[in-house]
Amino acid sequence: MRALYFDQTLSLRQDYPQPEPPAGEALIRVLSAGICNTDIEITKGYMNFSGVLGHEFVGLVERSPDAPEWEGKRVVGEINAFCRVCETCRRGDPTHCPHRTTLGIDRRDGAMADYTTLPTHLLYEVPDSIPDKYAVFTEPLAAACAIPNRVHLRPEERVVVIGDGKLGLLVAQVLQLTGCRLQVLGRHEKKLAILARRGIPVTTAVEAVPGGADVVVECTGNPDGFNIARQLVRSRGKLVLKSTFHGENMINLSMLVVDEISLIGSRCGPFLPALRLLEQNLVDVDSLISACYKLEEGLLAFERAVRPGVLKVLLDCGGG
Amino acid sequence: MRALYFDQTLSLRQDYPQPEPPAGEALIRVLSAGICNTDIEITKGYMNFSGVLGHEFVGLVERSPDAPEWEGKRVVGEINAFCRVCETCRRGDPTHCPHRTTLGIDRRDGAMADYTTLPTHLLYEVPDSIPDKYAVFTEPLAAACAIPNRVHLRPEERVVVIGDGKLGLLVAQVLQLTGCRLQVLGRHEKKLAILARRGIPVTTAVEAVPGGADVVVECTGNPDGFNIARQLVRSRGKLVLKSTFHGENMINLSMLVVDEISLIGSRCGPFLPALRLLEQNLVDVDSLISACYKLEEGLLAFERAVRPGVLKVLLDCGGG
Repeated sequence: MRALYFDQTLSLRQDYPQPEPPAGEALIRVLSAGICNTDIEITKGYMNFSGVLGHEFVGLVERSPDAPEWEGKRVVGEINAFCRVCETCRRGDPTHCPHRTTLGIDRRDGAMADYTTLPTHLLYEVPDSIPDKYAVFTEPLAAACAIPNRVHLRPEERVVVIGDGKLGLLVAQVLQLTGCRLQVLGRHEKKLAILARRGIPVTTAVEAVPGGADVVVECTGNPDGFNIARQLVRSRGKLVLKSTFHGENMINLSMLVVDEISLIGSRCGPFLPALRLLEQNLVDVDSLISACYKLEEGLLAFERAVRPGVLKVLLDCGGG
Repeated sequence: MRALYFDQTLSLRQDYPQPEPPAGEALIRVLSAGICNTDIEITKGYMNFSGVLGHEFVGLVERSPDAPEWEGKRVVGEINAFCRVCETCRRGDPTHCPHRTTLGIDRRDGAMADYTTLPTHLLYEVPDSIPDKYAVFTEPLAAACAIPNRVHLRPEERVVVIGDGKLGLLVAQVLQLTGCRLQVLGRHEKKLAILARRGIPVTTAVEAVPGGADVVVECTGNPDGFNIARQLVRSRGKLVLKSTFHGENMINLSMLVVDEISLIGSRCGPFLPALRLLEQNLVDVDSLISACYKLEEGLLAFERAVRPGVLKVLLDCGGG
């Protein structure tokens, strides 16, 4: 089968072996996959991954020997394949399972291919009303939903989102729905316009963002973003880190203690709320699609995805 | 001036004295007022109130001697006139101020009149894009926003709203925005249809609501509703009481302890989130308007408001 494969370099394989679903897993014909910043980081060496890339996808279950009720269903899938038996899984934190593999990120081939496999307990059927190109956003939108799932955000609070990349735009839209006093600080007028159209106050000027915010969500993943977040959050406020930072980042912990800041890391999130928000048209993902390429043009798609100002690049995998 | 006055019976006064704003208060020409279930309860003796009814309103500030910057502004107002100096106010719970009076409910004339007065620190300017008939909903919508302001609602949770009255319909719409797995149990197909159009699962059959809900919000104010809520909430779940109950209601406290239920009362809420939700068109209040009467037809309006199946009845006060 065809697959976008990374091992030091990215290449399109025409004859990659079609996977055979292991026990408990389903064979999924991939319909569409999305390029995430994490994919781009992986091509620069992040996670030391080699294998098929891709963790944002929608597909059709072609074969599911152990759970045939899934066959023929259009699905999205959680990316952390957890064991379900260890203590971490049993206490309700499966995405932290120490035995997990992660789709297209850690010891598990991903979805930028004709076929992929996943344990059926990670699958979610996609409602008919959600087109493929929107369903691909379930995983990143779930990551945005991870914030209200972990932090109590009060409608009365003032919230600042820093960053207008793909994740920042999804996070801002999800947080808007709380009714909070939201402001988004970004760098690109064009990306911010997507939020402004929805009534979200946006700015490119840090001076235009008053300090003392109750909650600041850092979505840039760079130290500048963190430093701005640190300046803007109030004493006893919450600083949510939504992006991984590269390399070592020194932070003044005692300053956090003096000001009693809660520093809250947030990663993968719940899929069902994301599907509900998509089904109920409460989030605009259409405006986030910059381009769509055929799987064969995968290398071009990656070149496009790294260009400045580009948001989501989709791969049409054609359903095999 | 004209005023809908209650003292044992409800009457339309043509020559009620126009109020003179006390220190710190503004004189407001009322544009529109809404009839709330609390108003109907007051006409049955609740709160032992006598005076001008009405606490849901939008108006124009005509005179504000101590804060002239308010003059000419279109405003809504919080209903609890708190003292701002007592311990309760200073610890951040002003709506519980023991010295408070409450607009049209407790020792303070309300807004179903040509004019009303309120302390300017309770006023909020209404954005131009919100028409009067929607702005009247700010107060009840704020009461709906009181729930996420007080309780951490996780998008992953299963939430049941009981009751399809005006408050239930607003609560359901606000909770939908969290992405939670929401279901509304009501009695009126027509009212529930307002929610169904927005993609919210609704039912009139209690058998169709699985038990074990993470959060149940009781919006009926009757003991049947509470008993159903108690059955549906899971161990360690949250039961939010959003409506006042009449008379004594016996509940089995030890059962609550055994099942570790959190019983959470919720009353008035924050105005700014409500105004943001209205401005950003995230809540449908238009479908909740059953009828609009002139202030002169106030008695007819109250007769209409108590009829079964009727939602919000508005009074057009004509702006004086």
